[in-house]
Amino acid sequence: MSTVKLWTDEEAAADPVVARVFADIRATRKSDFVNNLWRGLANHPQLLEATWARLKAVMAGDTVLGPAVQEMIYIAVSTANACSYCVHSHTAAARAKGMSDAQHAELMAIIGLAAMTNGLVTAMHIPPNQAFMVPEAL
Amino acid sequence: MSTVKLWTDEEAAADPVVARVFADIRATRKSDFVNNLWRGLANHPQLLEATWARLKAVMAGDTVLGPAVQEMIYIAVSTANACSYCVHSHTAAARAKGMSDAQHAELMAIIGLAAMTNGLVTAMHIPPNQAFMVPEAL
Amino acid sequence: MSTVKLWTDEEAAADPVVARVFADIRATRKSDFVNNLWRGLANHPQLLEATWARLKAVMAGDTVLGPAVQEMIYIAVSTANACSYCVHSHTAAARAKGMSDAQHAELMAIIGLAAMTNGLVTAMHIPPNQAFMVPEAL
Amino acid sequence: MSTVKLWTDEEAAADPVVARVFADIRATRKSDFVNNLWRGLANHPQLLEATWARLKAVMAGDTVLGPAVQEMIYIAVSTANACSYCVHSHTAAARAKGMSDAQHAELMAIIGLAAMTNGLVTAMHIPPNQAFMVPEAL
Amino acid sequence: MSTVKLWTDEEAAADPVVARVFADIRATRKSDFVNNLWRGLANHPQLLEATWARLKAVMAGDTVLGPAVQEMIYIAVSTANACSYCVHSHTAAARAKGMSDAQHAELMAIIGLAAMTNGLVTAMHIPPNQAFMVPEAL
Amino acid sequence: MSTVKLWTDEEAAADPVVARVFADIRATRKSDFVNNLWRGLANHPQLLEATWARLKAVMAGDTVLGPAVQEMIYIAVSTANACSYCVHSHTAAARAKGMSDAQHAELMAIIGLAAMTNGLVTAMHIPPNQAFMVPEAL
Repeated sequence: MSTVKLWTDEEAAADPVVARVFADIRATRKSDFVNNLWRGLANHPQLLEATWARLKAVMAGDTVLGPAVQEMIYIAVSTANACSYCVHSHTAAARAKGMSDAQHAELMAIIGLAAMTNGLVTAMHIPPNQAFMVPEAL
Repeated sequence: MSTVKLWTDEEAAADPVVARVFADIRATRKSDFVNNLWRGLANHPQLLEATWARLKAVMAGDTVLGPAVQEMIYIAVSTANACSYCVHSHTAAARAKGMSDAQHAELMAIIGLAAMTNGLVTAMHIPPNQAFMVPEAL
Repeated sequence: MSTVKLWTDEEAAADPVVARVFADIRATRKSDFVNNLWRGLANHPQLLEATWARLKAVMAGDTVLGPAVQEMIYIAVSTANACSYCVHSHTAAARAKGMSDAQHAELMAIIGLAAMTNGLVTAMHIPPNQAFMVPEAL
Repeated sequence: MSTVKLWTDEEAAADPVVARVFADIRATRKSDFVNNLWRGLANHPQLLEATWARLKAVMAGDTVLGPAVQEMIYIAVSTANACSYCVHSHTAAARAKGMSDAQHAELMAIIGLAAMTNGLVTAMHIPPNQAFMVPEAL
Repeated sequence: MSTVKLWTDEEAAADPVVARVFADIRATRKSDFVNNLWRGLANHPQLLEATWARLKAVMAGDTVLGPAVQEMIYIAVSTANACSYCVHSHTAAARAKGMSDAQHAELMAIIGLAAMTNGLVTAMHIPPNQAFMVPEAL
Repeated sequence: MSTVKLWTDEEAAADPVVARVFADIRATRKSDFVNNLWRGLANHPQLLEATWARLKAVMAGDTVLGPAVQEMIYIAVSTANACSYCVHSHTAAARAKGMSDAQHAELMAIIGLAAMTNGLVTAMHIPPNQAFMVPEAL
């Protein structure tokens, strides 16, 4: 169903870059599971390495928002970009990192509300108020 | 610049529904400031009332995420929908509700990362892993 | 395949809010059929109730556009937001409310044309003409 | 502000294809006004000609929806694609073709509602019901 | 799964417009294969004819970019619009027209990078530099 | 107009990370010009560094597509994401790297065509043909 081959563990083991990244994914997440995004990116080892490095730095490093909130923001962006794989994978991750049912309910409510007012604002082309501006940027 | 008239306070006072909603916005936010979204929606009083009721319930009611995180999720959705007014208004609101520079930095990092992997996943049409599925939904 | 459980009628009957909304959906539409959107929203009863209230007010209330045109506008938005469930459900609804094949053909033609000129305008960053502005808003 | 030059009438008169298209725009619309989209497309005469031909066929030909409804669907698509020029130009056109304030209010309500449920459906990844399917397509 | 019937060759043969377009698709591409987009558009013969005419003119005519680059640009747009059918069909077409694995890797890298910086720019609402403007357009 | 401060050269000089990145931008591009994206990202030095590193690797490194084609793909993505700053900056970059008027015309034609067929495919929910699938991925 994908436009690229999804690499098996055997295929990954035969490429030194892919093997190294898959090993780091497993070590970082303390899990043997390597999800399909990385198996697709394996077709382009440099892109795999750069994408994993960026995701690891942002989502597995120090965080002031906390892991569950990080994943909820990821879900919000993925929803607006209509990426169903991403919605699935980050909803699963958010739950694994502690998102409660009440937090999911509030996330859904904000996603729906924001999409609604985004549409209304764009359809009426509402101009920003001066009060929203950063003083230094005026 | 808008496709509808932005109502002044004088015009708002002359319509009972608009007057009531503007008064409730001011009372709820403990501020005299009524931003342009509501001044545009005033052209359609029923829509104004329904939109404000929904926003008030979600963003000014009980919250398990907290006001600043709510606004950051709003920014994430508004960015992906390319709504510049919304990005401006909710960034100002997030700061007013306590978003720190470090939180803004992390929000930007997640928005950029999510947009990147959304694009990669869609371009390669990666299928969801079974492991992402809700057990009850299988 | 969803990220939330889709509630059965038995599960819905056990929650007073969900039961009340499902009953109102059936009474309003004069049909026993409750589509999956509501079965997913049932996980968050308050969001279910608010979403149904809004949809009922707009799509099942007084209308100056007429039911079929309402649904065609819904299809147009859903297409641009790449929501396949929504395209499916509102195309079915539009047909049920009288959309003819000729109307569907014209809807498709406008959706394609608008997407094309949207792209051209954005790629060339065409500035709005003064003549498009609302006199009161200048 | 655009990424291409906006052609003046003098420049347009000097290119036979552009001159012919501008003349046809004026004749078709019974107005001397040529809006900026066409002045930008004039940089690429073949694209200008093809785009105008398509727009003329869809928006200035026979219609089962009627001119105002056509423009309202155009606004709906343009909003979801965040094309502000397009929202401006087609809102002006819809008003010129008879869209009432009540119709605009209903259009706004549907755009906001559809954006909201599009977001909810995508965030929960609701699967289409079999009942939505076209019998011949199953 | 589609919202319209996908026409078989037998059905296409019975409509003179559809039959003519299908024959031209086959002659232009030197292949008996007619993909599903055209089988869906067959429900609206005039739209089928206009869409094929436009696609043929752009993608099967003279080109300064070359066939593979054309298809890669098509993939880039289709990805950002979250059109999975389009991503599939144009990735297959790009490969058939000579896109190498190295070119696909670079395309993926640019798609991911552009989506990331698009998000950052919109979230921070960065204003364009004067230096980007076309001199004639200032 | 931005939601963050745009750093001046003086401010940049006072932060070691920002100073280093700005110097590398100037050295890589052999120009004193530092565009606004980097001046906004300077508020978050780590994000600035990571974003520049990624952009430099993709857009200023080895390329099989060539610099002008890279920029045209960037324009295509930025257009579909409705990022006007990005459309401006990458159109300027594409011209600086040799994009001809004829190439720009073809780019515009593909962007418009792709947006049109993306819309038609999504509105009719056309299923992918088996023939588009990667053999190894079936």
